[in-house]
Amino acid sequence: MSVADKAIILLSGGLDSTTTLAIAKSKGYECVGISFSYGQSHHFEVERAKELALSFQCIEHHLVEIPISSFGGSALTDPTQTIPDYQESNAIPITYVPARNIIFLSFAIGWAEARGIDHIFIGVNAVDYSGYPDCRPEFIEAFQRMIDVGTKKGVEGQSIKIHTPLISMTKGEIINLGISLGVDYAKTVSCYKLNEDGHACRTCDSCALRSKGFIEAGIDDPTTYVK
Amino acid sequence: MSVADKAIILLSGGLDSTTTLAIAKSKGYECVGISFSYGQSHHFEVERAKELALSFQCIEHHLVEIPISSFGGSALTDPTQTIPDYQESNAIPITYVPARNIIFLSFAIGWAEARGIDHIFIGVNAVDYSGYPDCRPEFIEAFQRMIDVGTKKGVEGQSIKIHTPLISMTKGEIINLGISLGVDYAKTVSCYKLNEDGHACRTCDSCALRSKGFIEAGIDDPTTYVK
Repeated sequence: MSVADKAIILLSGGLDSTTTLAIAKSKGYECVGISFSYGQSHHFEVERAKELALSFQCIEHHLVEIPISSFGGSALTDPTQTIPDYQESNAIPITYVPARNIIFLSFAIGWAEARGIDHIFIGVNAVDYSGYPDCRPEFIEAFQRMIDVGTKKGVEGQSIKIHTPLISMTKGEIINLGISLGVDYAKTVSCYKLNEDGHACRTCDSCALRSKGFIEAGIDDPTTYVK
Repeated sequence: MSVADKAIILLSGGLDSTTTLAIAKSKGYECVGISFSYGQSHHFEVERAKELALSFQCIEHHLVEIPISSFGGSALTDPTQTIPDYQESNAIPITYVPARNIIFLSFAIGWAEARGIDHIFIGVNAVDYSGYPDCRPEFIEAFQRMIDVGTKKGVEGQSIKIHTPLISMTKGEIINLGISLGVDYAKTVSCYKLNEDGHACRTCDSCALRSKGFIEAGIDDPTTYVK
């Protein structure tokens, strides 16, 4: 890549996407952050995403409102459903949001193609994760193939590249890499059911995986949990 | 399929999507229409889509607002660009909207999965078309593969099926089939630069292809053109 290459970073304000931003920045990309507001239970993560985009010198940060919650189908977007505690299981949990990463990446592709940006970074991970199908390498490979044949840039032989630097790392490895790149994880928010004061629940899937990561990394967990 | 199977129909209010709705209806599906408002130059097509959904007894019709126009990159969504007249060419014209069908189908997939709907119909056509890459069979096949591995239904072996009944038909064949299924093409709107009275320009890509279709079908063109 040339020094001036731009990259779009899908930035939720969580641990994984912030580390992904730090990685893209460390590789010399000029970063454009895109965050989505889609009826998730709280807006803390969007606020944090804005702050993190600033702290990693994103050249732009866009908040895109998309009506995912209008069709429901997930405990994360339907306030009548209860978000469950973490459980060891191979089943896809009810926090799965139908087609979420498909929709996020599709928007990012449209944005990238319209603006002449050739790279997209997404912090999906298929090791310490909730088992969502749209976080796995098979999905990313199929999505890449789809845009190779379904976009103008793709058919002209200059397809936009989807980067997934975290996909095969453990949560502990992600945290150690992020710290080496200057990520302050106290500023990131991962919990699926943050309370009104912005405190994490400690028990949901996302908290459990995050907490395990800090233990594995040998780093004090900087998360503010409910008492 | 059982008599009660539901299908989502991507319904723009144009000639192709209306014929696609008529086909799905004729096959016995209970049809759910989805239309998108994305900053296209006029809203006539959305109004027509509503009326057509009613006339083909859709059990639901949803209008989804999505901010595609915020990233620009197309003559259809950027009012500072002029929509060109039809030209014989192999180049992809500037009316191409980056990732439009990718985004539309992604939303439809989320909607279908959340609501337990197994079929999506889209009126893409790769014969009499503007050369958009996201209208071709290669794209649809790659999109199908992507959702087979990227959705919960897909990995559970019950993937949502994308139907493209028009993909290899000429415009004349589409019109003849639609008429046999009761489509009143006077109610459909295809023009890229409809005027304020809802009259079609006669000269854009979409008008040229539509007009050619009526000639080929041997049917009087019911479109209201500007004088």
